Amino acid sequence: MSGPHPSTAKIRYAVRAALADLSPGPVPNSPNWTVGDGRVVSPTVQLGEFGTGGRPLVLVACSGGGDSMALAEAVAHQQRHAPWRGGAVVVDHGLQVGSAQVAELTAQRCRDLGLDPVVVERAAVSESGSGLEAAARDARYAALTGAAERLGAAVVLLGHTLDDQAEQVLLGLVRGSGARSLSGMPSARGIFRRPLLGVTRLECRESLDAEGVSWWEDPMNDDPAFTRVRTRRAIADLEADLGPGVVAALGRSADQLREDADALDAMADEAVLELGAGPWDVAAFKVLPRAVRTRVWRRLLISAGAPAGQVSARHTEACDALITNWHGQGAVHAPGRVAVTRRAGVIAAQASSPGGEQP
Amino acid sequence: MSGPHPSTAKIRYAVRAALADLSPGPVPNSPNWTVGDGRVVSPTVQLGEFGTGGRPLVLVACSGGGDSMALAEAVAHQQRHAPWRGGAVVVDHGLQVGSAQVAELTAQRCRDLGLDPVVVERAAVSESGSGLEAAARDARYAALTGAAERLGAAVVLLGHTLDDQAEQVLLGLVRGSGARSLSGMPSARGIFRRPLLGVTRLECRESLDAEGVSWWEDPMNDDPAFTRVRTRRAIADLEADLGPGVVAALGRSADQLREDADALDAMADEAVLELGAGPWDVAAFKVLPRAVRTRVWRRLLISAGAPAGQVSARHTEACDALITNWHGQGAVHAPGRVAVTRRAGVIAAQASSPGGEQP
Repeated sequence: MSGPHPSTAKIRYAVRAALADLSPGPVPNSPNWTVGDGRVVSPTVQLGEFGTGGRPLVLVACSGGGDSMALAEAVAHQQRHAPWRGGAVVVDHGLQVGSAQVAELTAQRCRDLGLDPVVVERAAVSESGSGLEAAARDARYAALTGAAERLGAAVVLLGHTLDDQAEQVLLGLVRGSGARSLSGMPSARGIFRRPLLGVTRLECRESLDAEGVSWWEDPMNDDPAFTRVRTRRAIADLEADLGPGVVAALGRSADQLREDADALDAMADEAVLELGAGPWDVAAFKVLPRAVRTRVWRRLLISAGAPAGQVSARHTEACDALITNWHGQGAVHAPGRVAVTRRAGVIAAQASSPGGEQP
Repeated sequence: MSGPHPSTAKIRYAVRAALADLSPGPVPNSPNWTVGDGRVVSPTVQLGEFGTGGRPLVLVACSGGGDSMALAEAVAHQQRHAPWRGGAVVVDHGLQVGSAQVAELTAQRCRDLGLDPVVVERAAVSESGSGLEAAARDARYAALTGAAERLGAAVVLLGHTLDDQAEQVLLGLVRGSGARSLSGMPSARGIFRRPLLGVTRLECRESLDAEGVSWWEDPMNDDPAFTRVRTRRAIADLEADLGPGVVAALGRSADQLREDADALDAMADEAVLELGAGPWDVAAFKVLPRAVRTRVWRRLLISAGAPAGQVSARHTEACDALITNWHGQGAVHAPGRVAVTRRAGVIAAQASSPGGEQP
């Protein structure tokens, strides 16, 4: 008697480890979760919610592709001996002819694996062109959150792999957008968990082959109109130029940069609390390291009314020059009509009144 | 009358800005320099060293290639109106047939531009194969430092461009080696300064063409045996896959990550000072953010005798598990026979005695 294929064993172990805190007893060694803005929070899983003696429900977000089918297989296998039970949600964006059939086929495959409940959620996307990927992602997360609430699920598992993580990091790097976007996807955020961030796409397919489970190859995965398809190609080119191991190295870089970003974001949160409502003395900024100060400026601009998506390094740098390169310059103008001024050693940030026109 | 070519103007401006603190008067607004290990130090330029009324000497490290020839041209032009004077050092590694002639020709071109003194330094490299690039770099920096001391130079300017910076960052990323190696080359370190980190390779060549200055194309720049040549190709592939702007974005990423690494390294230095000589209470580690703690472990291992080049993330993670995942595990063994133990809530790091054998 031989055990499962090494890739199958690896994926099942990853699933077990990611759900180790889910049990019908008190939550043992519950890990803290880092949410998107760098805060560390305790998990909100309250096992009482699942009824007396009921096992908490774990939902696999399953597209039918190789990554999430491998995840579904592992969840279906592990639930037999686990203190939780597994179900699945299949999201149908309706973007391709026949997508409803693919979704139904995927749902049936999940049921055949032994997952229960398995539901199909429609999540139409109206955007097209360059906004399509982002709009589809937003619609998908909304549909998954809705299904989880309706079904009373404790956790939703996402099938992102080490390859996805590497692509995310590379994309952040070539956009030059700082440590947070370079730090990739977290392994847990809110109800979502990503057990496969240490597993490659190839290992997922090896596992499915070994277990005799079929999956669906999305033709959109080969369409270079999509950024993620071009990023995948870029990583293949990097491996050809610089040798193998690029994917694993990008994953390691992400892990280290995520810790750095978490620490600096937490320090900036603390500094903002200590600063309190403005105006502020220049001296209060001078004691902060520049990496923290840049993050503090970003937070102060947003609190003053600047839209988060529009605050860039250019704005935080201009604010910082009020401290580090003061030569009597005028107000720094940020998005949302926010102006930051320095007068007599005092910094103020406020949204300027519209002015000029009478009502 | 038209002004210089925009690329020439950009490079000359970058040179003037990089040397703004050099004047025969007191050093105005002297910037702090960040050295390799993240410490911030004040510049050591003491203008009294250059003699009464003498202008401080700025040396261009010139290979004769397009980047450093453009730098030499800009220094030669700027010195006419600057409070400093320009010279050049040409390093001959003797790696190629005819390298002595190339070095002499380069030196002559520097003299023709008006630089004085111009010297050729021999810096033989005995390594070959994969160690060649590193050995040549070490020999080059040693030769430049030696020439700077002998000639009494205040500053040595290096011709690294934005393209070199992007390659450095990409290489750090695909090696997965953390924020410090991702943060690229600093604009100033010790006597060395890099004025061209915001200038592209193409702009250097445009400037030389416009000024009618010749340069030398090193055939080694096309030899894929060298990592830097393969990295250059990788960046070209990235731009083909993901669109233009990759070089500039990598440079921006480097700038942001360098600030982050500087801040966290400084915090780790401070934490190590506060920890003092061991053994240490577990509680002293728990108050530190993980990103700082990892850096503290690295410093403690090295202080205890582990060779810096051999301490990896694997070792610091094992040490950190003594705090974050304590289950009575045994000593963590690090390079240099250093062992880290936890007993009764107390952490100790020490080099184990050789033991066993009698002298």
